Amino acid sequence: MFELHLQLQADCVVVGDFELCRVLLLNDCQYPWFVLVPRRADMREVFQLSDEDRAQFHRESDCLASLLCTAFSADKMNVAALGNMVPQLHVHHIVRYRTDAAWPAPVWGKMPAVPYEADALAQVLSKVRSLLSGVQGFVEGDR
Amino acid sequence: MFELHLQLQADCVVVGDFELCRVLLLNDCQYPWFVLVPRRADMREVFQLSDEDRAQFHRESDCLASLLCTAFSADKMNVAALGNMVPQLHVHHIVRYRTDAAWPAPVWGKMPAVPYEADALAQVLSKVRSLLSGVQGFVEGDR
Repeated sequence: MFELHLQLQADCVVVGDFELCRVLLLNDCQYPWFVLVPRRADMREVFQLSDEDRAQFHRESDCLASLLCTAFSADKMNVAALGNMVPQLHVHHIVRYRTDAAWPAPVWGKMPAVPYEADALAQVLSKVRSLLSGVQGFVEGDR
Repeated sequence: MFELHLQLQADCVVVGDFELCRVLLLNDCQYPWFVLVPRRADMREVFQLSDEDRAQFHRESDCLASLLCTAFSADKMNVAALGNMVPQLHVHHIVRYRTDAAWPAPVWGKMPAVPYEADALAQVLSKVRSLLSGVQGFVEGDR
């Protein structure tokens, strides 16, 4: 039985669900920062997923990275499965700009998170939900 | 025409080639740290690869992560496509331990690289080439 890890619940807002993955927005307005979490229990590594889930995960990850790159005019996408602290398998998809707070370093541990103001949060959620509405199987919000 | 980026040539040793990717060992003895570079010109993002190359890339990446995790008894694999500094598409596959120099932080920018001694370099290259010799299409060294 899949349940989103408490730390991810605390740090993120749910954008919606792909067929396999929950799509989260990390509550840090310094970067458009999204996280994919395969809705399977007890996974730590991508390669632990079944063959079918792994193929679906890669489709969803590549699709999300590509859509974000274009819609947010990224200078570079950073896609990373780390999970040294939160044991539930989750994969970061971060839009990076040459002008952002951490560039060219990776974002982790560089700057304390700056939560979104309510209006800005609503705006980015609306933008990304609209962006993902064209992806087959995407459902807004928490199922 | 694919040519390995000069910065990757400077920082890494060639382990060999999968069907699609060159497999590199980063010359930093603090972590078993490998890099996959799809042998295609002018790529920056995984999602820019053709459908066929992308599927092959994911097979090679998942296979490498899984084999390294077991052979090196990782506490966690860190798999990341960043590329904020080196523009050629390359994906890190890093064996992490709870006892390593940067844990639980990501490795980038944490500690200056410590090059391998010649013996230790030969040993890790031999270990990983032997590990990958069972992977279909793997060829040792620089083609």
